[in-house]
Amino acid sequence: MRQSKTFIPTLREVPADAEAISHQLLVKGGYIRQTASGIYSYLPLGTKVLRKVEAIIREEMDRSGASEMLMPALQPAELWQETGRWKVYGPELMRMHDRNNRQFALGPTHEEVTTSLVRDELNSYKKLPLTVYQIQTKFRDEQRPRFGLLRGREFIMKDAYSFHADYESLDEAYKTMSDAYHRIFKRVGLNFRAVVADSGAMGGKDTHEFMALASVGEDTIAFSDSSDYAANIEMAEVLDQGQKPDTEALPLEKVETPNVKTMQQAADYLGHTLEEGLKAVVFKVDEQLVMVIARGDHDINDIKVKNLYQAQMVELADEAEVKELLGAGFGSLGPIHVPEAVDVIADNSVKYVANVSCGANEDGYHFKNVNPERDFQVKQYADLRFIQAGDASPDGQGTIQFAEGIEIGQVFKLGEFYADKMQAKFLNEQGKAQNLIMGCYGIGVSRTLAAAVEQHSKDGAVIWPKAISPFQVHLISLNPKKDEQRELADRLYERLLEAGVDVLYDDRKERAGVKFADSDLIGIPVRVTVGKLAANGEVEVKFRDTEQEAISHENDLLDQLASYL
Amino acid sequence: MRQSKTFIPTLREVPADAEAISHQLLVKGGYIRQTASGIYSYLPLGTKVLRKVEAIIREEMDRSGASEMLMPALQPAELWQETGRWKVYGPELMRMHDRNNRQFALGPTHEEVTTSLVRDELNSYKKLPLTVYQIQTKFRDEQRPRFGLLRGREFIMKDAYSFHADYESLDEAYKTMSDAYHRIFKRVGLNFRAVVADSGAMGGKDTHEFMALASVGEDTIAFSDSSDYAANIEMAEVLDQGQKPDTEALPLEKVETPNVKTMQQAADYLGHTLEEGLKAVVFKVDEQLVMVIARGDHDINDIKVKNLYQAQMVELADEAEVKELLGAGFGSLGPIHVPEAVDVIADNSVKYVANVSCGANEDGYHFKNVNPERDFQVKQYADLRFIQAGDASPDGQGTIQFAEGIEIGQVFKLGEFYADKMQAKFLNEQGKAQNLIMGCYGIGVSRTLAAAVEQHSKDGAVIWPKAISPFQVHLISLNPKKDEQRELADRLYERLLEAGVDVLYDDRKERAGVKFADSDLIGIPVRVTVGKLAANGEVEVKFRDTEQEAISHENDLLDQLASYL
Repeated sequence: MRQSKTFIPTLREVPADAEAISHQLLVKGGYIRQTASGIYSYLPLGTKVLRKVEAIIREEMDRSGASEMLMPALQPAELWQETGRWKVYGPELMRMHDRNNRQFALGPTHEEVTTSLVRDELNSYKKLPLTVYQIQTKFRDEQRPRFGLLRGREFIMKDAYSFHADYESLDEAYKTMSDAYHRIFKRVGLNFRAVVADSGAMGGKDTHEFMALASVGEDTIAFSDSSDYAANIEMAEVLDQGQKPDTEALPLEKVETPNVKTMQQAADYLGHTLEEGLKAVVFKVDEQLVMVIARGDHDINDIKVKNLYQAQMVELADEAEVKELLGAGFGSLGPIHVPEAVDVIADNSVKYVANVSCGANEDGYHFKNVNPERDFQVKQYADLRFIQAGDASPDGQGTIQFAEGIEIGQVFKLGEFYADKMQAKFLNEQGKAQNLIMGCYGIGVSRTLAAAVEQHSKDGAVIWPKAISPFQVHLISLNPKKDEQRELADRLYERLLEAGVDVLYDDRKERAGVKFADSDLIGIPVRVTVGKLAANGEVEVKFRDTEQEAISHENDLLDQLASYL
Repeated sequence: MRQSKTFIPTLREVPADAEAISHQLLVKGGYIRQTASGIYSYLPLGTKVLRKVEAIIREEMDRSGASEMLMPALQPAELWQETGRWKVYGPELMRMHDRNNRQFALGPTHEEVTTSLVRDELNSYKKLPLTVYQIQTKFRDEQRPRFGLLRGREFIMKDAYSFHADYESLDEAYKTMSDAYHRIFKRVGLNFRAVVADSGAMGGKDTHEFMALASVGEDTIAFSDSSDYAANIEMAEVLDQGQKPDTEALPLEKVETPNVKTMQQAADYLGHTLEEGLKAVVFKVDEQLVMVIARGDHDINDIKVKNLYQAQMVELADEAEVKELLGAGFGSLGPIHVPEAVDVIADNSVKYVANVSCGANEDGYHFKNVNPERDFQVKQYADLRFIQAGDASPDGQGTIQFAEGIEIGQVFKLGEFYADKMQAKFLNEQGKAQNLIMGCYGIGVSRTLAAAVEQHSKDGAVIWPKAISPFQVHLISLNPKKDEQRELADRLYERLLEAGVDVLYDDRKERAGVKFADSDLIGIPVRVTVGKLAANGEVEVKFRDTEQEAISHENDLLDQLASYL
């Protein structure tokens, strides 16, 4: 494409409101413009990248046996009422009504619509399994849209849905989709991890998030330094490792600890390390009060507490209530002398401590030389804390490191939730009606594009991975007023097009400085510059990702590029 | 694709609510399903056709030098307020507000958004002209959605916008786009006409509609039987042809015509043909009363009256007001003795009548032997009537015929309306700020798909044009339980895929009758059936559009198909 004929409005300044690198570089490079908060227009370059990402996704979805569909953005409220999500989904669901006052949602996801489409048709085990997908615009009224394409209110997703007669078949589709996702993100050129995630309130089973590692990430991932293991930090299991220290249990001692409120203050006051103190936090788990004990250097993970109790809700207990029951406020709690109404449970690591300190359930007092079993009992030991950097990886290989990540995809075993609510049944081999079993699989298409920019930039400009660069080659005619330069550039442009190379040709009557600056901002990885060497039929070739540069004769250029492209 | 792995829910019965052929056949063939009134889901087959239509459009748009973009569906009300269309656009504009009560429209079109994107960037004549396009979901809250995809509330459009420094450049882009549209609709396989259309209230200049001829059409097209001429019936010019008849003017005579109210009654009562009477209709043109005279067999076109007066509004005059001024009601009006307050104008054909009748401006009376000039004068003769079948074509070639048409595209010279309202200016070569000059160009993508079905069906089933058929070949294994049939079919499926043929393979364990019936409903133009002849390595090939059938050996099949595909 001739640059003079298209629309690439580059900017030299970083837009004031752009925090994320991808947001900055996509605006500067003339890829996107904001039309309203969290709502973007893709300019010609942005659209080209989008189409390339979509093509990769489409190829891999088709290859995995999924059939493409296209469902509407406007979804009747009745469908959402069938599953109860019309009420449950908060203000993020954009709602509207038509001229006849019928209510609609602008779809943030399509479980209801898909299920309504198949429920009367997938009526026999013979028609199962089935996987369908679509690439489509989605809507979510984010409270705080930010980071450009990373957290928008109108965005593009690939969403897929699978339907099964049994859970083994769901497991297979889940594996097939996960494999496809690995291929997709690898082809796009992302550094990513598939992490074990929380299935949340959806009532589902397994779920993994695909996270692109990036400094702007809103999630923290725990991953092994020597294996594929990765998990959302909230989900990462901590191995029960350790042994009782071989030290003599000293006599329990109650000491005054005036104004000590935190673990650090207690450690400082009592002259020991953080891990030599026990913390005690009281939660309300549904209706049960639960005191959770952990080492002072560990953070208690309330999701693990919730899962242990299979509870609906976990929240910090009310301090006044705690004080009345236990005799002390939050700064002075401990597992010794706890009334029966309160369950005491402890993280596994507590098994392996000796002669530690803890709150005495009396404001301003702690116990020293506390030893589990001798001084207190717990109802249960379990994995109740957040994993930490340096912990052993749960798969037994290597140690844990942390990284920030952007969620670019998720695979999810939904089970029977939607079929049950929406009466989506099939007849099994025995002629008996059963719920359809379902999986869903999403990829944030516009997020994937932005994540690629987060990972691939240098000196304030993007350098696109080859597979999704808007063009393969940026051909620049430095001074088109000079016949020999313009003619050589024109000739090369035609030759590259004929060879099937996707080329952006800067044929504009602009100064060389403007052209180079624009080219940097656009970020196509290969740049071919036609300048003074044109007299010899020569051009400069620069591979921007490796910074390799070379002089090439016009007759050798195609060969030279071919091996790279 | 294996039919057992995808989702093609055919129906044997015509859906009760489906009036249009395309609606019926797309639902029966398992292409689409209604999700809400005027809102459809594209199932896998429908999506495949859609993608093929989109690919043709994209190729021809790119070839014409337009750059693809993607603008949002959610458009802030502020942009529509700038052009005044927030007020002017009626209830068809779907409106909503976000969680912060900011108002948005769901875009039915993107003039405002596009103009807002370019207005700060296309600031110099050097950057012009520019044409951008997008293929995108649009929303319009139709009062009466019907005909399936033909008049929906959520639909897919290609919309393009061009920006220019002068009107010559706009003319060029208009021509380029019109040419691209001709190529697109021809490639899709449509019988269509580009018709002169009314630019309506948009304040624009030239406009053409591209109409697919079809019995379900909501517009009537007048076209020449021997040239390319075609126009919306409202817009078709009528040539001023005729000559004064060489008959003696008989004496004017006033006759009683009791109970005569219509032209037909007058002709019957007075014993002459319809064309031997004159009709007189009084309009209110802005504030002026205008009596329009035409031959009794012609229909007056109020748009032509409006254009003649360059008026904002034309409506039938109030009958009471007419009676007070002229002395008679609507059934007895005529051009003789009309007070000066009322303009009298006549259609060109009135010049050429002699000894005709007309109302006497007195209830129950007519004049006979009326002759223009002798008996009445008119302020102006002009083309004021609708064209009729059999009239000479306005381009002088052939005669006019009528056809019903579906609007599938429109090209429009918008001029400066949007630039003027939205302050979109550029500096011309003299450094002076000027309004950007704009064109817009739409194609109804989902309508094009439906129009193709309207034109290509037989015996209650679609037969797709080759270019947009969901698959090129339908391969059917009649009895996959028989090894030789299944193995041959499997072998052919692999070979066809390897040869790059897009093939749907019916590998299901269904009866032959079901398979043939489904295949008819799906409508792929080439069917390859593997049945009893499999023992000889032979298959039946049927070209459904030509009804040609043949027996082919498996080794010859690819060659035989190649020449067709």
